Amino acid sequence: MTGPFKKMTGNAYARQALLPGGFRDVLAPAADYEYSAVRQLLKVFGHYGYDRVSPPLVEYEDSLLTGPGSTHANQMFRLMDTDTQKVMAVRADMTVQMSRLAATRLQNAPRPLRLAYAGNVLRVKGSQLRPARQFMQVGFELIGSDALEAELEVIKIAVEALESVGIRDLSIDLTVAPFIRELLTAFDLEGDDLAQTVSALSAKDAHGFDALPDKAATIFSALISAAGSAREALSVIEGLTLPKKTGTLIKRVRSLVDAIEESMPSVAVTFDPSETHGFEYKTGIGFAIFARGSNTELGRGGRYHVDHPDIDAEEATGFSVYMDTLMSALPAPKSGKKLFIPVATPAEMVKRLHSDGWRTIQGLTETADASKEARRLLCSHIYLNGSIQPLD
Amino acid sequence: MTGPFKKMTGNAYARQALLPGGFRDVLAPAADYEYSAVRQLLKVFGHYGYDRVSPPLVEYEDSLLTGPGSTHANQMFRLMDTDTQKVMAVRADMTVQMSRLAATRLQNAPRPLRLAYAGNVLRVKGSQLRPARQFMQVGFELIGSDALEAELEVIKIAVEALESVGIRDLSIDLTVAPFIRELLTAFDLEGDDLAQTVSALSAKDAHGFDALPDKAATIFSALISAAGSAREALSVIEGLTLPKKTGTLIKRVRSLVDAIEESMPSVAVTFDPSETHGFEYKTGIGFAIFARGSNTELGRGGRYHVDHPDIDAEEATGFSVYMDTLMSALPAPKSGKKLFIPVATPAEMVKRLHSDGWRTIQGLTETADASKEARRLLCSHIYLNGSIQPLD
Repeated sequence: MTGPFKKMTGNAYARQALLPGGFRDVLAPAADYEYSAVRQLLKVFGHYGYDRVSPPLVEYEDSLLTGPGSTHANQMFRLMDTDTQKVMAVRADMTVQMSRLAATRLQNAPRPLRLAYAGNVLRVKGSQLRPARQFMQVGFELIGSDALEAELEVIKIAVEALESVGIRDLSIDLTVAPFIRELLTAFDLEGDDLAQTVSALSAKDAHGFDALPDKAATIFSALISAAGSAREALSVIEGLTLPKKTGTLIKRVRSLVDAIEESMPSVAVTFDPSETHGFEYKTGIGFAIFARGSNTELGRGGRYHVDHPDIDAEEATGFSVYMDTLMSALPAPKSGKKLFIPVATPAEMVKRLHSDGWRTIQGLTETADASKEARRLLCSHIYLNGSIQPLD
Repeated sequence: MTGPFKKMTGNAYARQALLPGGFRDVLAPAADYEYSAVRQLLKVFGHYGYDRVSPPLVEYEDSLLTGPGSTHANQMFRLMDTDTQKVMAVRADMTVQMSRLAATRLQNAPRPLRLAYAGNVLRVKGSQLRPARQFMQVGFELIGSDALEAELEVIKIAVEALESVGIRDLSIDLTVAPFIRELLTAFDLEGDDLAQTVSALSAKDAHGFDALPDKAATIFSALISAAGSAREALSVIEGLTLPKKTGTLIKRVRSLVDAIEESMPSVAVTFDPSETHGFEYKTGIGFAIFARGSNTELGRGGRYHVDHPDIDAEEATGFSVYMDTLMSALPAPKSGKKLFIPVATPAEMVKRLHSDGWRTIQGLTETADASKEARRLLCSHIYLNGSIQPLD
């Protein structure tokens, strides 16, 4: 914290600890800085036709558990609805709400449907990587197109949005969990073999495939070691003899990498063909965006299905950012300038100062020494005798 | 709802009902419209030096029940903190969080402390007047000044903020619950007499004082009938013989009314001297803002105490708005313009259109009839052969 809020007694520190773990007060200037970044992200999504929607924080548990929601089943706070005696839950993720909207209220809106959102999500427990139990999720979804251009549009917008808030040197990491699933099926892996293979893939342990037939072991080992530059990883995979009916997704990755390199030459593209992210809910290419040289994932997206109760599932691609992570990748905010104005300053003058971009702190009573009072109030400038003067 | 989301089958209507009562999806263009209004309110608060702070949605129950929080004790959803086995609660109001910040983390920040906030609050049950169980509360607090100028500053900013989002012909209604409390004490009212008097004041029932001594009955009846124009109400009260040690607050109302009329001549000022709002947590003048001719209270504020654990309570004045009420007092939002651009439109051109203020919807694939596709996607304009054309 900087500015007016930096002083804190031991006593106050103790009381600050009275917030439950994972919850925090965001003070000035950080709170405003975060909301400006949210606004900027939504502005870019909006430029590309994504309409902001705002579902509630709380829904019936069932509707938050459908489709992609199942990933967060253990992460949701439950509440009792006293009216209906039904269990409600606080959302732990907003993409499940976008799926619900697409499948219900917006099922007849023209496709592709473009939705944007920003809102708080709560989690029962923080993780080691993410101790926060409340954070703001901001994202957008392109629902109802299976074209490669859908992935490309989402990645382009994600990159533009992150660059527009000040993130530089972006890197995109692609994954193809369904391809791994295809391989596991093609090699008829079951029981212990299946569990051991999934676990070795997750741990990136090339020796974990020793019990598998040679052909399978060769492929899985190659996938693990191929992770890195997308061009090089694709060369490795394209040199492998893959089982029949697998590998379509690899061709799609090739096309996507070509398109990204053409349209976003400054963005580095990596590919981790063995990464499954626990198979989450992705049904196609997944992607995560990093600032190059950092291990912090700034945002994540990919292709998934929106399940409809009455019609076939539709293809969707989305991207979302957790604002706490994003803010920690940006420079710390500075306290803005504030102009002290004496109590008698006319209202017309105050409004003129505001339209010139000043934030004013008006004295409530006469003070003998206005400059001293301005400094006490941590103002950077003072309006005195008709002119604005900086305070040291 | 207008625009792309107006079509809805009976089926979808049924599913929409699957949200718990009092919770709702806000779709386009309403969601963006509401957030623009929030931004505008915060912008005005910010101009006057109010720093945005953002406390968490969830705290330990105890800390949400202190001071002004007790008003909402029955309205808070409780959650169990699995780590500590302590009871947490979801905030039902944000002013209690501002008091907590002022009393703890910001106890050493210079006074007066100016804080602004915007965030969702949840309520266990909707009321008849306010069926919503989730709504956004936006407000600001001036903490640490007992000057009349504090009330005046808060009212001025509240008026400017509401006018800036498009509310016209504002009216301010003043109340003085602590004055009523003084009278009840001065007349030594106890037991049934006290209960009956409070109830009659609340019901504005002039016959409810029949059992009281003449002097008390006269005063309470006069207060009930005095409600209306502040000038007239003050004349009535100033003509009464009030018990000793009461009436200081009436003098303050007189000064405030003079100041409001001088600085905000277009704002109507009314005064309801018998209104107590259940004595809530106000310790001085309370005020509510209405659009003239409407019964809908757009926002409410007033003076209260911030209690500190170690030092004396400090005087504070605040104002807050519930966004659902405010939005319902504004004209319905219109769907914005959208420009359809063919898939092959160069990225440079797309960015130029955005900087010209256009929202674009880019085709993902080639279409035989671009105009037809643009209409299907509910675009208002199309970019064709290098020029922007409106679609009928």
